Amino acid sequence: MDISGLLTSAGINTGFCLVAFALYSVLRKQPSNASVYFGQRLAQLRAKRNDHFSFDRFVPSPSWIVKTWEASEEEILASGGLDAVVFLRIVVFSIRIFSIAAVICIFLVLPLNYFGKEMRHRQIPAESLDVFTIGNVKEGSQWLWAHCLALYIISFSACVLLYFEYKNITSKRLDYIVGSSLNPSQFTILVRAIPWSPEESYSDSVRNFFTNYHASSYLSHQMVYQTGAVQKLMIDAANMYEMIKCSPSEPHFGSCLIRCGLCGGTKHSFKILSGEPESIRGGSGFVNSDLREKECGAALVFFRTRYAALVAAQVLQSPNPMIWVTDLAPEPNDVYWKNLCIPYRLLWIRRLLTLLASIGFMIVFVIPVTVVQGLLHLEGLQKRLPFLSGALKSKFIIRIVTGYLPSAVLVLFLYTVPPTMYLFSTIEGAISRSSKKKSACCKVLYFLIWNVFFVNVLLGKVIERLSVVSSPKDVTAQLATAVPTQATFFMTYVLSSGWASLSFELLQPYALLCNLFYKFILRNKEDPCTLSFPYHTEIPRVLLLGFLGFTYSIMAPLILPFLLVYFFLAYLVYRNQILNVYVTMYESGGKYWPIMHNTTIFSLVLTQIIAIGVFGLKKSTVASAFTIPLIILTLLFNEYCRHRFYPIFKDNAAQVLIELDRKDELCGRMEEMYKKFPRAYSQFPSTSNDMCKDIPLPLSHCEDRDGNTRLQDLEDIKPGNLPTQSLVVRSTLEIEELNLK
Amino acid sequence: MDISGLLTSAGINTGFCLVAFALYSVLRKQPSNASVYFGQRLAQLRAKRNDHFSFDRFVPSPSWIVKTWEASEEEILASGGLDAVVFLRIVVFSIRIFSIAAVICIFLVLPLNYFGKEMRHRQIPAESLDVFTIGNVKEGSQWLWAHCLALYIISFSACVLLYFEYKNITSKRLDYIVGSSLNPSQFTILVRAIPWSPEESYSDSVRNFFTNYHASSYLSHQMVYQTGAVQKLMIDAANMYEMIKCSPSEPHFGSCLIRCGLCGGTKHSFKILSGEPESIRGGSGFVNSDLREKECGAALVFFRTRYAALVAAQVLQSPNPMIWVTDLAPEPNDVYWKNLCIPYRLLWIRRLLTLLASIGFMIVFVIPVTVVQGLLHLEGLQKRLPFLSGALKSKFIIRIVTGYLPSAVLVLFLYTVPPTMYLFSTIEGAISRSSKKKSACCKVLYFLIWNVFFVNVLLGKVIERLSVVSSPKDVTAQLATAVPTQATFFMTYVLSSGWASLSFELLQPYALLCNLFYKFILRNKEDPCTLSFPYHTEIPRVLLLGFLGFTYSIMAPLILPFLLVYFFLAYLVYRNQILNVYVTMYESGGKYWPIMHNTTIFSLVLTQIIAIGVFGLKKSTVASAFTIPLIILTLLFNEYCRHRFYPIFKDNAAQVLIELDRKDELCGRMEEMYKKFPRAYSQFPSTSNDMCKDIPLPLSHCEDRDGNTRLQDLEDIKPGNLPTQSLVVRSTLEIEELNLK
Repeated sequence: MDISGLLTSAGINTGFCLVAFALYSVLRKQPSNASVYFGQRLAQLRAKRNDHFSFDRFVPSPSWIVKTWEASEEEILASGGLDAVVFLRIVVFSIRIFSIAAVICIFLVLPLNYFGKEMRHRQIPAESLDVFTIGNVKEGSQWLWAHCLALYIISFSACVLLYFEYKNITSKRLDYIVGSSLNPSQFTILVRAIPWSPEESYSDSVRNFFTNYHASSYLSHQMVYQTGAVQKLMIDAANMYEMIKCSPSEPHFGSCLIRCGLCGGTKHSFKILSGEPESIRGGSGFVNSDLREKECGAALVFFRTRYAALVAAQVLQSPNPMIWVTDLAPEPNDVYWKNLCIPYRLLWIRRLLTLLASIGFMIVFVIPVTVVQGLLHLEGLQKRLPFLSGALKSKFIIRIVTGYLPSAVLVLFLYTVPPTMYLFSTIEGAISRSSKKKSACCKVLYFLIWNVFFVNVLLGKVIERLSVVSSPKDVTAQLATAVPTQATFFMTYVLSSGWASLSFELLQPYALLCNLFYKFILRNKEDPCTLSFPYHTEIPRVLLLGFLGFTYSIMAPLILPFLLVYFFLAYLVYRNQILNVYVTMYESGGKYWPIMHNTTIFSLVLTQIIAIGVFGLKKSTVASAFTIPLIILTLLFNEYCRHRFYPIFKDNAAQVLIELDRKDELCGRMEEMYKKFPRAYSQFPSTSNDMCKDIPLPLSHCEDRDGNTRLQDLEDIKPGNLPTQSLVVRSTLEIEELNLK
Repeated sequence: MDISGLLTSAGINTGFCLVAFALYSVLRKQPSNASVYFGQRLAQLRAKRNDHFSFDRFVPSPSWIVKTWEASEEEILASGGLDAVVFLRIVVFSIRIFSIAAVICIFLVLPLNYFGKEMRHRQIPAESLDVFTIGNVKEGSQWLWAHCLALYIISFSACVLLYFEYKNITSKRLDYIVGSSLNPSQFTILVRAIPWSPEESYSDSVRNFFTNYHASSYLSHQMVYQTGAVQKLMIDAANMYEMIKCSPSEPHFGSCLIRCGLCGGTKHSFKILSGEPESIRGGSGFVNSDLREKECGAALVFFRTRYAALVAAQVLQSPNPMIWVTDLAPEPNDVYWKNLCIPYRLLWIRRLLTLLASIGFMIVFVIPVTVVQGLLHLEGLQKRLPFLSGALKSKFIIRIVTGYLPSAVLVLFLYTVPPTMYLFSTIEGAISRSSKKKSACCKVLYFLIWNVFFVNVLLGKVIERLSVVSSPKDVTAQLATAVPTQATFFMTYVLSSGWASLSFELLQPYALLCNLFYKFILRNKEDPCTLSFPYHTEIPRVLLLGFLGFTYSIMAPLILPFLLVYFFLAYLVYRNQILNVYVTMYESGGKYWPIMHNTTIFSLVLTQIIAIGVFGLKKSTVASAFTIPLIILTLLFNEYCRHRFYPIFKDNAAQVLIELDRKDELCGRMEEMYKKFPRAYSQFPSTSNDMCKDIPLPLSHCEDRDGNTRLQDLEDIKPGNLPTQSLVVRSTLEIEELNLK
């Protein structure tokens, strides 16, 4: 492919982006789409909207960009949580490092590549892209030290930036832990693999065990029940209401299982299903015995202090490590209840099987990648399939086919990956939604780096040569020859996967169609959908593009400007989405950052290894030798960060928790908090409006992009974190302005 | 090599073994060698010996074998600790699994190999060894299912045996933890990276931190001092004794640093160097200020309960994970004081550097391995170096050179490995002697498996073909072709490395020479040397031979009888050594077993992978396909064991410790124990007999094989564990009998 081919591709994508952005600026002003583009704001406000007509609504405008740009980090933190901040820091880090890389590589490395060989240069537009890669530098060139120097500068800047970012995010995480001190999850542990005994129920086992071994700090507990079973019981219970007529007693302090107010405006609460045996024997023993049978071997145990919960979660409880398995409990609406009932002894089998399934999926995915590579190496294909040459005579078609189609096809196939990996993470048995998403994020990341980078690089070589890999005696040399030749493909990949995906992200075509379907076909007045941020698709994508940026920075610097544009757009688009679209129902507390850190270190080391190979092929032993210390330094830096920062992302520090406990005890806030615990975790939220009128109405119930999360009662979810109170007082008009300007 | 070559080698080794065993049975009867061969018994008894002369002393006898055989596991546990029991279980496991493998492979697989091809067989003694390997089975043979079946039986038996052994050793470890409940290490944690502050000393920082955050359970602490510095101070202090005249006060309850009774029969104790400021200001403030400067940023902190210590050791203390790093303290004489002073921030650098150094050492070691392989492939060498052919005309010389010399050379070179790796483990910064030995054990094991097995296998192929490795497109196929051809070498390796090393182990030539040198040249009356068991050399050797046994079991079953003989001899020899020679001063509490387990699983999986390759080469896709589920099953089994048993070897269970605490509190034993703590850990043991006469005389002081361990006062070391009390009452004559029969 030549420069004009690349420009065609860039042109198509730029045009597409501009159209998409303009379309977005119009669509977002339509009141009927508010639920698609302002899910986050709506969740905060829940105000009535006036569908007043104005001509201004149909004129594209860049005002949303200005507003997005002006938002402060506090606003991001308030509306998207720490994970959103971490995600944006990843983008900011990428902008910074690739700005540095672009300056160095375009002014130092690119001219050296271009004039690397003595040759007659054609006009720039007709120049092949290979002329701009390191492949054009002649063997034994004196100028390879410049590449080596550029590599040093990039690696050092990356490490310095990474260090300060990691430090910054670590302190943000500590703030997060302190800030969420009212969260019951800090007092709660999840106990799994409760041993079964014929004499006593699981609930009694838990009480006996913890009063025996953690008497001073144990508060109460709440059993986990098999899903389905209890929902059926709840309906039975509702039917029995008339018969039982339970007394209007005070909420029982203990493990109150299900709370449900009944219709009719009475103040009577319906609390037959409390886990405490005393309260049950008083009225409805038979329901209780039924419920006992539905108990899982898992429970949430509440402690008196945060420190006690931390200790109980971290220490090995029993001499048999397969029983009494403890973990810190996830936040109340982060819990993924379905998986809590999986017997702990099956978890390791599930893990191994999903691992095998993921590997299998990776292998099967080579087929679409081969198709893509076939399109890319048209000349090779034409030789083998002569009937194609008729159709491929037009220059423009070839340009389109080689410049745009391959990565578009790949991108389409890649859309199947995140849901699949998310499914695998669910099957694996994650106990919280955020850990499920995080695990899916890692899987997708490995998948992308393997299938997009390595398979493309190695497969490209196979098709080009029309032969199987011959004597790969040295992986480094192998990569060194293969990587630069694939530069063109990855440039177009940045354009199609990167730029186009941002347009899709902004326009939300899927949610828009859903919305239309709901509003105009089902005639449903309720807002259909509110999504949570799909970290498991967006983080791997951003990291993959960063990975490509590092590996190609000194090989083919032309990729860097396109990447920079991508990251700038990503910064705008994702800020906008976090502020306006996605609702944060649960978060991991910044645990995505170590993934980002490790990926960047991996990218750096791989870049350095490939550079050694390339320098070796170019017969510059000095440059090769000088790169080896760089690898060792990078690994040392990583080791340091792993010791210095990583433990904070794994465990909470005792000092922090003890001081939080002390502060609360001084304030006398503890007793008040204890009362909240039994209500905090509810396995079966009151979802039916017919049954529970006196509980604040849930805004809207909808399956999230992955078909799993249900948006629950939002005010329950983030008490005090959303700036609801300050915003709700504004008038409807103000709100309109806010949304539609 | 043919059968007669192998038999020559076996003959030489058998003869050597017999001579060594006979020599041992004579040497052990010589009273002057008692310190070499009865270190363990001497440590228990410390009785006078009569050098009475008898003719019986010079007649070889097998009585030691009988006595060794008759010893019960309780005796082994009493004299060698849990580590010794674990080591013997490894040998017993090997005997069991290779008995099963030998029966199956010799009666099922060996005939199939021998008659695998239609060929004229020569007479057995002249038959090439290759005829007995799987290489002799013709391609597409119908009989490969037998190999596959044998592999299934071996894998299943191995897993079943492993499961029961792991279970057994886990319960032994729990008994060990309960049994050593009087050990102060269970109440103690080691704190490193105490932050430095200009206002207060490290000691004050520790006190403030723990009284602040662990007020209810903190008891006292003891600082760690820079080595050398304090020893000098002690001498100064002794000189100042006359001037100071300290009062005969009660031992201070707190962190009493150094205890030292002075000569002269007075009951006055000399306790100026207590860590508590009150006691210091009372007399010798200037010594104290000197000592303050010598404090390291590390301390031993004592807690009121075992559970509190466990919790403090496991929980992340500070939001900066690089300060206040806590670990459970090693047992008092397991502590490796020198390394406690290493600043914690340097540890990760040390770890990375020793890792790099180990890898470098592994690479350099390829040189001697190449020499060995050169000797083995004499024909190949003869072609390249024609001048050798004159010297190698004699058939007998060739037989010696190919049958014995290669592995003897390799064994000699391998003797340098354990000390080097032990040195690396020391530099790495291990805090206890046992963890140092364990880490060295792992390093030596990786080294042996890589250098003895993989390098030999792959290098053998290179030299044979006189070409570099060409297109290793499939590692499995590569191994499958290379492994069976190296069977001969590994058979002789078992003979030379295995059998001969046992003779050396029994005879202890190095200790014997030391002893002679001390007794007859230096005319020193004291016993020179007592050793602790060198787990880091013996466990890797046994595991390597097991590894070879597994990989060759179905390829070349002829190796199995030699291995079985080795393991039987090993069982006898090591039992004898544990009962008589080695003194157990510290132990890891069975932590070697997980290493053994993982190595065995690795061996099994590698055997299965190689088998898949071999079946593939023999064009038996059915057998190949049937082996794949076996790999998955083996990995699943390993995963199960990792979850079921491994955590017990990593952490102590809360339940066990809490119950121990409770029992002690009920008995009222706690206060008594608290008083012992300050004396338990002494960084500077009273070694000088001139200064400290009223402290029980240490038996003997000597550097251990690795030049590190000093045998300290034995009665202090294992209170109640050694059967000293019961034995000491026996008369000198009885003891003589016991030792010299």
